[in-house]
Amino acid sequence: MANYARIQDIGKPKVVIIGGGFAGLELVKSLRHADVQVILIDKQNYHTFQPLLYQVATSGVEADAIIHPFRKIFEEQKNFFFRLAEVQHVDTVQQLVETNIGLIRYDFLVIATGATTNYFGDEQMEHNAIAMKSVADAITLRNTILCNFENALQLDDQEQLNSLMDYVIVGGGPTGVELAGALSELRLHVFPKDYPELDFKSMDIYLIQSGGELLKGMSAEASKKSQQFLEEMGVKVWLNKRVKSYDGYTVTFNTGETLVTRTLIWAAGVTGNPVPGLRPESLLKGNRLQVDAHNRVMGYENVFAIGDIAAMVTPENPQGHPMLAQPAMQQGKLLGKNLQHLISGQPLQPFVYKDQGSMATIGRNKAVADLKLFKKEVKSQGFFAWLIWMFIHLVSIVGFRNRLVVMTNWFWNYFTFDSGNRLILGNKQENVPITETITHKTVL
Amino acid sequence: MANYARIQDIGKPKVVIIGGGFAGLELVKSLRHADVQVILIDKQNYHTFQPLLYQVATSGVEADAIIHPFRKIFEEQKNFFFRLAEVQHVDTVQQLVETNIGLIRYDFLVIATGATTNYFGDEQMEHNAIAMKSVADAITLRNTILCNFENALQLDDQEQLNSLMDYVIVGGGPTGVELAGALSELRLHVFPKDYPELDFKSMDIYLIQSGGELLKGMSAEASKKSQQFLEEMGVKVWLNKRVKSYDGYTVTFNTGETLVTRTLIWAAGVTGNPVPGLRPESLLKGNRLQVDAHNRVMGYENVFAIGDIAAMVTPENPQGHPMLAQPAMQQGKLLGKNLQHLISGQPLQPFVYKDQGSMATIGRNKAVADLKLFKKEVKSQGFFAWLIWMFIHLVSIVGFRNRLVVMTNWFWNYFTFDSGNRLILGNKQENVPITETITHKTVL
Repeated sequence: MANYARIQDIGKPKVVIIGGGFAGLELVKSLRHADVQVILIDKQNYHTFQPLLYQVATSGVEADAIIHPFRKIFEEQKNFFFRLAEVQHVDTVQQLVETNIGLIRYDFLVIATGATTNYFGDEQMEHNAIAMKSVADAITLRNTILCNFENALQLDDQEQLNSLMDYVIVGGGPTGVELAGALSELRLHVFPKDYPELDFKSMDIYLIQSGGELLKGMSAEASKKSQQFLEEMGVKVWLNKRVKSYDGYTVTFNTGETLVTRTLIWAAGVTGNPVPGLRPESLLKGNRLQVDAHNRVMGYENVFAIGDIAAMVTPENPQGHPMLAQPAMQQGKLLGKNLQHLISGQPLQPFVYKDQGSMATIGRNKAVADLKLFKKEVKSQGFFAWLIWMFIHLVSIVGFRNRLVVMTNWFWNYFTFDSGNRLILGNKQENVPITETITHKTVL
Repeated sequence: MANYARIQDIGKPKVVIIGGGFAGLELVKSLRHADVQVILIDKQNYHTFQPLLYQVATSGVEADAIIHPFRKIFEEQKNFFFRLAEVQHVDTVQQLVETNIGLIRYDFLVIATGATTNYFGDEQMEHNAIAMKSVADAITLRNTILCNFENALQLDDQEQLNSLMDYVIVGGGPTGVELAGALSELRLHVFPKDYPELDFKSMDIYLIQSGGELLKGMSAEASKKSQQFLEEMGVKVWLNKRVKSYDGYTVTFNTGETLVTRTLIWAAGVTGNPVPGLRPESLLKGNRLQVDAHNRVMGYENVFAIGDIAAMVTPENPQGHPMLAQPAMQQGKLLGKNLQHLISGQPLQPFVYKDQGSMATIGRNKAVADLKLFKKEVKSQGFFAWLIWMFIHLVSIVGFRNRLVVMTNWFWNYFTFDSGNRLILGNKQENVPITETITHKTVL
């Protein structure tokens, strides 16, 4: 006999949502007055505010301030049930989700599993690089950076020093740009005070972009200005270069050039994170599930997908919508309405993406923003964009307490030129042991 | 040839301090204008404010708010050098500290390694119980508690449920009392909202004390009142009982009674944490180093010990001073002065302990305090003691930013009856697997 997970049956249609990212969270909210049972499954007990992961990695805010437990977010929502579980398989015939805590029956299934780091099949890279998709990644990077400097104190060989003090960030999207900016501010204001015995003039930060511009998808002004800001801050921006391999010590480029670093941050792409058991024909390129205008997965009646994992192919978006928070949230919200319409037999409303613009912050008083305000495009680079960025991110963080803590940190960091959380607490990445003699010949 | 750790030589007497707890921290501060080189060795890069560990364990504050990186604390102190290292051995003839990063030469050595959990040789207990001495312990307990409830949702066998929902805290000192109080507040205000599917009437919290009173060392009024407060909050206080064994599931007492729990918190005692290489004759009962009135370790000229690891035997303190923050801080401060006197050939000042009283908090508006104000003893139990407790702890936390974050949390928790950090992030304790069938016969 099959083993079912124990979940109270409230005698209402069961909407099972896999994944509590931006899309899943909005869907749960949108169903708060619906006559359904909402069952959210996630392998963490908290929602992660991904846009600020880079600040956790660079000691700017504490991890706890950007994550929020699901049970707390929805403690007032009576139709909400949470299960901490890992999904192993989906059986769309029996309408069952197979998890490590047992089977969960659904009437409507929503896949909101998001995206995962794309190493394009390079296992060596996956093993040696640090990603920037989860709180665990961010904490790993923070600990690794701090340990690098502690270890650097014990070395005088220049190449070994470079391997610990230089950083290579691959991927010139918002994550790469924001991380490069934050690291370079630490190099300027914080690390020299913490490690007066080290020479931070020899700390190099490389930002590698395979294409010809940073922040692809934003305006030409934003791309250009972000590069200018970064270069003014001493970041070495390498465009039109691809990383061919990374063995944990030497980065080799398609041009034949090499760099030495023990810390390579891989922010070069994501791929859909689908659930086993769905028909393979529903998967498009990039591992995303093809959905119709109502976010229904092609080939199913009662299986939906929202957010990064969903590819809604439209003439404007032949690859699906951009894998960003905004389309995810908008899809989650609309699907909540549509599921209620479906149950009550009303017509469904097709999804129309309202792009409100995008932005990235580079450093103190420096951000770039392409906004759509009152149907007008407003482009801004510099202080005003930075204020907007802070405001939007603060109000978007889930939970008033978290907002307070993040704001306290930001004020503190801004006025003291400090970042408080320089703690080595938890995991770190260990590549080539430092005691090992390495005799690479380096070009740079 | 011996392998030395690289530390810049500033040509001044080297004071090497092992351990950055309350004692070590005060000593470094006290040497800020001294004509010496201060070298602090710690295996963490941060100082831990231990009195609030129990709040990290019970989701009251984030771990990051009660720990503070050494390099940040002392970034303005020019004679301060920090090394993240583990001490393996001390060679008092060659005046060398052997660490995992190499040898460190000293002119004056100060052992400030504190105390560690005392399991009295019970290896099974050490393996199965959770201690409460480090941030890692506190995070482990927090994650374990939250996972217990997630797992409890999947069970209906009452004994299995009890094993996940009941908590046994061994040790009726401040840690045990404060932890029992905080857990019982979570049971009242927070957990039932998070887990409406569980029945929290069946959650039991046991506080076990081998002696006849809680908070031994405090006044009779404080002991009695703290027990009354806890019992009013539903904590089962068991006095005059000793735990004989704990296999990760069944707790067996010297009386033959048993309890079932997967989570036993061991706060029943500490023992000194000495450094290998010192003469065994210097060690007293409880693994503490015998020191004279100037905190000099018996048998040495230039080796000192301060804080929990030091036992200064006096007529009033035949076992040495209590292992608390206050004597540790006072010894650290005085030793800073005395080392300078020693170097300049002035007479040393003997240590006199100024007991400013002690306190413990039990819950909202409830604490007990025995204070010494203007040489008068002031005993208080209840709201006033609770205000004092909060004030003293807030001003004692290192770092203004941390004070802000802790205060924000406390205000938030107080007015919302909430505790925000209910995150399962990091390690947890896993004893007997839940799938395993257990057929113990339980008395209770």
